[in-house]
Amino acid sequence: MHPILTVGSVAFDSIKTPFGERSRVVGGAATFFSVAASFFTDVRMVAVVGEDFADEQMQVFGGRRIDLTGLQRVPGETFRWKGEYNFDLNSRETIYTHLNVFDQFRPVLPESYRATPFVFLANIHPGLQLEVLDQVQAPRFVAADTMNFWIDGTPDELRAVLGRVDALVINDEEARQLSGEANLVKAARVIRNMGPRLLIIKRGEYGVLMTRDEAFFAAPAMPLEDVSDPTGAGDTFAGGFMGYLASADEITDAAVSRAIIAGSAMASFAVEDFGLDRLLSLTQDDVRRRFDAFKRLTHFEAL
Amino acid sequence: MHPILTVGSVAFDSIKTPFGERSRVVGGAATFFSVAASFFTDVRMVAVVGEDFADEQMQVFGGRRIDLTGLQRVPGETFRWKGEYNFDLNSRETIYTHLNVFDQFRPVLPESYRATPFVFLANIHPGLQLEVLDQVQAPRFVAADTMNFWIDGTPDELRAVLGRVDALVINDEEARQLSGEANLVKAARVIRNMGPRLLIIKRGEYGVLMTRDEAFFAAPAMPLEDVSDPTGAGDTFAGGFMGYLASADEITDAAVSRAIIAGSAMASFAVEDFGLDRLLSLTQDDVRRRFDAFKRLTHFEAL
Repeated sequence: MHPILTVGSVAFDSIKTPFGERSRVVGGAATFFSVAASFFTDVRMVAVVGEDFADEQMQVFGGRRIDLTGLQRVPGETFRWKGEYNFDLNSRETIYTHLNVFDQFRPVLPESYRATPFVFLANIHPGLQLEVLDQVQAPRFVAADTMNFWIDGTPDELRAVLGRVDALVINDEEARQLSGEANLVKAARVIRNMGPRLLIIKRGEYGVLMTRDEAFFAAPAMPLEDVSDPTGAGDTFAGGFMGYLASADEITDAAVSRAIIAGSAMASFAVEDFGLDRLLSLTQDDVRRRFDAFKRLTHFEAL
Repeated sequence: MHPILTVGSVAFDSIKTPFGERSRVVGGAATFFSVAASFFTDVRMVAVVGEDFADEQMQVFGGRRIDLTGLQRVPGETFRWKGEYNFDLNSRETIYTHLNVFDQFRPVLPESYRATPFVFLANIHPGLQLEVLDQVQAPRFVAADTMNFWIDGTPDELRAVLGRVDALVINDEEARQLSGEANLVKAARVIRNMGPRLLIIKRGEYGVLMTRDEAFFAAPAMPLEDVSDPTGAGDTFAGGFMGYLASADEITDAAVSRAIIAGSAMASFAVEDFGLDRLLSLTQDDVRRRFDAFKRLTHFEAL
């Protein structure tokens, strides 16, 4: 079992879906990732919050395997995001994004973080992702997330990141945009040639397609009767994936496939309630049962 | 191993995709279904063609386990359809549909067909589907396909069909429309309450979601580097599914799951070339290898 370092946003989210509304709840990529990953291993967080992030909010990290030495608290307001989802939850509109203290954020790794063997760079400016990579010592496995905004806006810095990571986590539209290929098998090959040997393509309610070298693994999303809020599902997936992988003895095809299922299981919980709520009440037994449910959902006997 | 009876269209298709064009090739739901199912068991076809359907076209059925006693040949022209696909093959525009001889088609089962234990009602007017059901003797397993056109246009006759089938095969949009539920788990329950104990929801490039009673099984689509033409993929899936199931000893959850994979394997071949072309050159070995590839694509070890 190895610890994981993550860098990304901690935020106040305001969320509206067809099933309800929440204002100013704790969110952000680093938050969802860390809470999910902490079910499997120790997590070291690098992020920034403002003075409005009180003890009450800090409690979401309490009693978990999350090291907050690298969480900066600075004057000003915490990053705020507001989004509204459409009726089938498959698309959303961002009402506002206030970077606030995140605007001047420069990641600084505490000395105790520098030798962390597993690293997850959440979806932030690729320049900041590079700054983190410059501060870690010979990590064993690095994964990054990114989005259309950086693919379009900072292609050179993004390419520099891709040349230094083992895995990339993006959605299918972004995979097509980044590669210039409509066909996902071809897109995956183009992206692997940019650096990451392992590519995870997120497909929302349809699950995940993973490719490592020339092999593919596909996991469906769990069919759920009650989906309240997809916010953070992708980062929660990444947390479960990296958490499981860091807890495994070796990075083999078998371990990677199980890590994909662990990530899918965590994400399937995240969407069942608003924001972090379902993850905060989750037990290890819940996680094991959901993993088993994925086995039942996908298992068939060979011919 | 049991024979399968199917009723549906035999057609001349004209197809345009970003990867090429074909004019007046043999297609139709009953054609794709029968060719696919004949890899697993004997198929008895009920359909109609016009005088323009020559020996040359009949050859697609030759040398296969397809009984054409129920294929009517009548004066006039064969059903013709022309469609054009968009750049990512996920949607298409119908340029024309000429029913021709299909307009006056009334299915008449030869005496030798009446005791067929497995029945597949392809996507035709539900009134015709009912006429077929009135002519078969106590079938063991009946599956039907349908579409938005009948859900909207002939809801009462469609409900009568649903009350008499064991399985329904539709796409996710149609499942939502038929049930009035956006959530697929709820939609499936509503549809099962209309009659079919088994529901197969087709999701195109994302694969298939199956539910039988309260259990779910999900199969991804095979990631393919070359997809030429999705025409007939759904009927080919149904042919592989019903063919495998009819060749199994019992209709158990395990057999149904493998049948879903058999259908997915057949559909993954169908899209690799235009029209029927890939299916016509397919061998039993190809099918077994593709089934194994699905196992590798989805397999992971339980915790």
